[in-house]
This record gives sequence, C-alpha cells and structure tokens, in this order.
Amino acid sequence: MTLVSRARPGTRPAFDDGLLPRLHGELEAFLARAPDLAPDLTDALARLLLSGGKRVRPTFAWWGWRAAGGPVDGPRADVAVRALIALELLQGCALVHDDVMDRSATRRGRPAAHVAFAARHHRGRWAGDSRHYGDSAAVLVGDLALAWADDALVTAGLDGAALARAWVPWQAMRTEMIAGQHLDLLAGARREESLEKALTVARLKTAAYTVERPLHLGAAMAGAPAHLVDALRSYGRDIGVAFQLRDDLLGVFGDPAVTGKPAGDDLRDGKRTALMALALGLARSAGRPDAARVLRDCLEGREVTDGTVLEVCALLWELGAVDAVEERIDSLTGLALQALDQVELDEPVRAALGALAATATDRRR
Amino acid sequence: MTLVSRARPGTRPAFDDGLLPRLHGELEAFLARAPDLAPDLTDALARLLLSGGKRVRPTFAWWGWRAAGGPVDGPRADVAVRALIALELLQGCALVHDDVMDRSATRRGRPAAHVAFAARHHRGRWAGDSRHYGDSAAVLVGDLALAWADDALVTAGLDGAALARAWVPWQAMRTEMIAGQHLDLLAGARREESLEKALTVARLKTAAYTVERPLHLGAAMAGAPAHLVDALRSYGRDIGVAFQLRDDLLGVFGDPAVTGKPAGDDLRDGKRTALMALALGLARSAGRPDAARVLRDCLEGREVTDGTVLEVCALLWELGAVDAVEERIDSLTGLALQALDQVELDEPVRAALGALAATATDRRR
Repeated sequence: MTLVSRARPGTRPAFDDGLLPRLHGELEAFLARAPDLAPDLTDALARLLLSGGKRVRPTFAWWGWRAAGGPVDGPRADVAVRALIALELLQGCALVHDDVMDRSATRRGRPAAHVAFAARHHRGRWAGDSRHYGDSAAVLVGDLALAWADDALVTAGLDGAALARAWVPWQAMRTEMIAGQHLDLLAGARREESLEKALTVARLKTAAYTVERPLHLGAAMAGAPAHLVDALRSYGRDIGVAFQLRDDLLGVFGDPAVTGKPAGDDLRDGKRTALMALALGLARSAGRPDAARVLRDCLEGREVTDGTVLEVCALLWELGAVDAVEERIDSLTGLALQALDQVELDEPVRAALGALAATATDRRR
Repeated sequence: MTLVSRARPGTRPAFDDGLLPRLHGELEAFLARAPDLAPDLTDALARLLLSGGKRVRPTFAWWGWRAAGGPVDGPRADVAVRALIALELLQGCALVHDDVMDRSATRRGRPAAHVAFAARHHRGRWAGDSRHYGDSAAVLVGDLALAWADDALVTAGLDGAALARAWVPWQAMRTEMIAGQHLDLLAGARREESLEKALTVARLKTAAYTVERPLHLGAAMAGAPAHLVDALRSYGRDIGVAFQLRDDLLGVFGDPAVTGKPAGDDLRDGKRTALMALALGLARSAGRPDAARVLRDCLEGREVTDGTVLEVCALLWELGAVDAVEERIDSLTGLALQALDQVELDEPVRAALGALAATATDRRR
C-alpha cells in the first residue's frame, strides 16, 4: 500500500503529520541500542526495516492516537511514537517468516532474508544445506523481531495504565496475524474455494492486523472512550477489507487505469483471493463449468502461462467478478466513513481518516 | 534435565515446593482462555506443553522469587506462578523452532510439531509440498508461543513496577536465547572448533536461558536488592554452564555410571560441544593428528558408524577430555555455591538451590 499523496503536486495529504521521519529515527535508535549478541540477525532486520516500507500500521495507529486526543508533540507524543515502532518490528517478523513460507526470493527489491543467508552459506562453502541454513537463520530473525516488538512497546515509557490498555489490542492483533497466516496456508493446501474463507483471511491478515488493531492500539494508548474505540474499529474493519479487495484487483490487473495492462502476479502464485472465490461462485451460478475449470486450474498452479493469465483476466470481467468487487469496495468505504460520522472528531483527524480511506482503496494506489 | 529426586525414595527433594501442579493448572487455564482463531496451532502447542516437560526454567525462577522473599502462597504467589508460565510458553517456541532447524522427528516421545503437520498434509492429499507445509505451520506455532509468552507475563497481574523490573531479565533472556541458537547454527555451518565458541553457546543457550535469567526473573519480580540478584546470577551462570557440560557428557556416554554403555547421540548429530572442542585441543597439544582427524570426521558427519562412536568415546577418555570436563563441572559447582555463601538466604531456599545445583550436574541425572 502506497501512502503517497493523491492530492495536488506540492501539497501534503491530510494524514501526513510528519510522523514518518520520527518513526525512522526511533526505529534506528532502538536497533542501535540492541545487544550485540547476534549481529548477523540484527543487521538483516535493520536492512529490512530501515530501507523502506510504507509504515502503514503506525500511520493508522497514529491517527487512532490523534482521534483520541493524543498530542502531536511533546513528551507524551514522543512516547507514543516510540511505542508505535513495535508495529514495524512486528511487521518485520511477519515479512521475514512469510517470505520463508511463500518461498519469495525478493523483498523490497532486495534478496529476502532467507535468500541472503542461504547465499552467504553457499559462498562460504559452509557445512550442510544452504537453503536449510537460510530458512533457519530467517526464522531466528523473525523471532528476534517478534520479541523486540514487545520490548519496544513495554519499554517505550507508557505509564502502567496506558500499557495495560494498549496490551488489549496488541495481544489480539498478534494472535490474529498469526492465525490469519495459518488460515491462508490452509486455504491453499486444502484448495478452499469459498468466499467466506477468503474473507476470513482478509479480515484477520489485513483488516485486523493492518488497520483495525493499529487504530485500536493508538486510541487505547491515548485513553479513548469505548464508543470512540468502537467507531474507529468499525471504520478499520471495513477499510481493511476494502484495502484487501483493492489489493486483490491490483494483484491481477496491475493498475489498469494507469498502465492499461494486466500484471497477473497473484494468478501465477495461485493466490486464493476473495476475487477468485467470487468469480468461482459466479461461474457456478451462471452454469459455466468451463469457466470454473479455467479458474480452478489457475488456482492450482497448473500451467499458468501468459495466455492463462489473459484468459482468467477476461473471465473475471465477463463473469462480473470485477464489478462485484468494485461494488463491495465502494460500499465498505461508505460504511467505514458512516461509522466515523457517529463520533465527534477534530476536523484534521476526520480529514486524515478520510484521506487514508481514499488512499487505501484507490485504483491508482 | 530431570528434576527427579535423588533423595531417598519417598522423600521430596528440597526444591519440590508443590510448584509443578500449580504451573500446570495455570498453563492449562491460559491455553483454554486463548482465542479460538487458530485451533490447529493452539492444539499443537497444548499437546507439547501439557504432555510433559520438567519445568526447569520456572523452577529456577520460583527459587529466585523465594530467595528474594516472595511468598509461597496467597495472591502474590498466585500472580508469580501465573507469570512464570511465560517461561514454559517461551520454551515451547524454542523447542518447536529448534526441531524445524535440527530436523528432529520426535519431541517428548511424540512426533515433533512440524512432522505432525506434514503428516496431516500428506494424509489429506493436500496441495503442495507436505514437508514445507509442516515446517511453515510449525514456524507459526512457535510464533504464537513466543507472542503468548509475553502476553502471559504482561497479563499475569504484576503491578507496574514489578512488571518493569521483570522485563529487564525477560528482555535479555529472549535475545540471548535466539542469539545462542544462531551461534549454534553458525558453529555447525562454519565448522567451529574452538572451546571459546562452544562455551559462548553454552553460556547463552543454556546458562543464561535456562538458569541465570529465570533466577533473575523470579528475583526481580519479588523486588530483590542488587547484591542478591548478582549472587543468584553468578550461581546461575556457573550452574548453567556445568549443566551444559554434564549434558555434553550424557549426550555421548548416556549414563555410564548406571547403564555402563555409550549412547553417542550427540556424536551422530555432529554436535559441536565444549567436550569435543576440549578433546580437539588436547589432541593438538598432544601431537595426535590421527585423533584430531577422527574427531573432526565425526563432527562433520562423515560415516559416523557404531564403530566411530566407540572410537570417539575411547578417544575422549584417552585424551583426558572427560576428566577435564568433570573437573570443570566440579569447580563451576563449587564456585556457584560459594556465590550463594556471600548472601543471606532462608535455610529452605539455600537447601533448594543446593539441591538444584546437585541435580543439574548429577551423573545420574
């Protein structure tokens, strides 16, 4: 997800509050303070976390904080920023472990952690199997990132009551993230076709982990009342699912509005998205076993050529799956903004959450 | 490590304070309260944690708590027991991830988590590679255990000051454990032969993670003064290394005092222990390149037959490595007990720590 401005060139989007450089500085300081016991692991983590990333989760968390009246500057705000690097460390764990599970070779334009470790093993002619060494070292990088995420939150300087409040969404989101990843693995292994299963994964892996819980965390740190937390979570759940649905479309079509050509990466990976589940359901109800077979072959990774990608793209339009997903994105975005209408928010906060909703679901994202 | 009584039959060892059933109950309650989002992962973790284990780390932590005047019963003690299940959850992560890295097939007499998941994949004729699915699911079980370990400590009911004190050893021990595992992997891959490297792994993976930091954690929760923490940590470091050295001997010779026959498991696994490093050093200084070659071939896993195992066993005695390790165990145990002589301790606590030292380093362990 790119949180780049869609506003006029030269203007900053409403959610740009100067957070990103502050986060980067805190993350750098945290990693520099880390004990020097496993420099290879720390370096791999630092390379990943300091070389890019959109900081999506801390950005949502920050606006949860602001929505609940948390200050922008001063010592309390500094503590909040320091606490929010926990979200980036946690994401470091998720990325490194997911790349091992998905056998992804690259991450942010560089070799994935497990690949870099395997390459070093191979170059050094070390003993044993290079790939297994790479996977093992990457598991440890992720473990370190997960442990350090909790360290960052606990040692940020929150008072006891704020930490206890923050731990409620934090505890939930870590379990939701891990459970979502397992359900995603299972869906692939068990060849799940139901829309319901695909949406459950989207709710856990994206909506809860990326939007709802970060908002909840920021709001809880600032001591938000229950009705505000409820409204932010409701907005977050809907925007989160809409965000994943936009991702499903972009993963197949690239950015057709801009590039006009299909990308098809998700199709080559056999990703079981809500988009594909919807298309399969539409193929069944339209009495199109031929179309269902093409979709299923693609999901099972049987000979996914460029021709297959084009055929599946055409089918997704023809069956009405693209329109159905676009409609869902629109209605979820509408519901999300309605949830915010139920609560009082400062104007800059409402503008920022509106801009985040638009950016997260934008076709040109 | 077996914490079974070496006292007369029918008597309880001095460290048996009725802790184990309380820990089991708290662990069971924690797992039962866990959200039902990833039942396969939770079940795998519960099977591992509730089906055995010696509870070595919580036992040391409990005696750190008692040494600092923590009560045996009542609400504060209940909170302490609840906090100490964090150590078992963390150990769950270590075991499940280590088994993936070491490709161990069994754990506590049952299939290791990654093997059980791979078998289910295979039986169900699921899509993709069974072994990769098993490894991936096991990585997620370990991640869940690591996240839940922190949840257990944070939500046990410690007051803010006690939690902040406890987090110091807790933060250190998680990083030490992960760093130790990585140095162990690296030592194998890079064919390290130095005693210093083997002892560094022993200090991090066993001494810090199993003895020193658990004692530190328990003492910190109870608010121990610095000089008591120092004495307990000093005892823990020495007993921890002695414990690992005893493990090195048992891993090669089984329990010669009882069974009289070699076991040789560590030799078949090519484990780079302090015992082997010492033997290699002795072979070099004795001008025995023949002996060094046999030891090195064994470490590199070249044709480790029953004959090789017997030959290496004989060499370890012949070169004086067994005696050297026994002497180190004795001197470390002596130093550990001396460290305790520097502080005031209630008699039952001193007796318990003495009995733990004896059991951890006992030949018949």
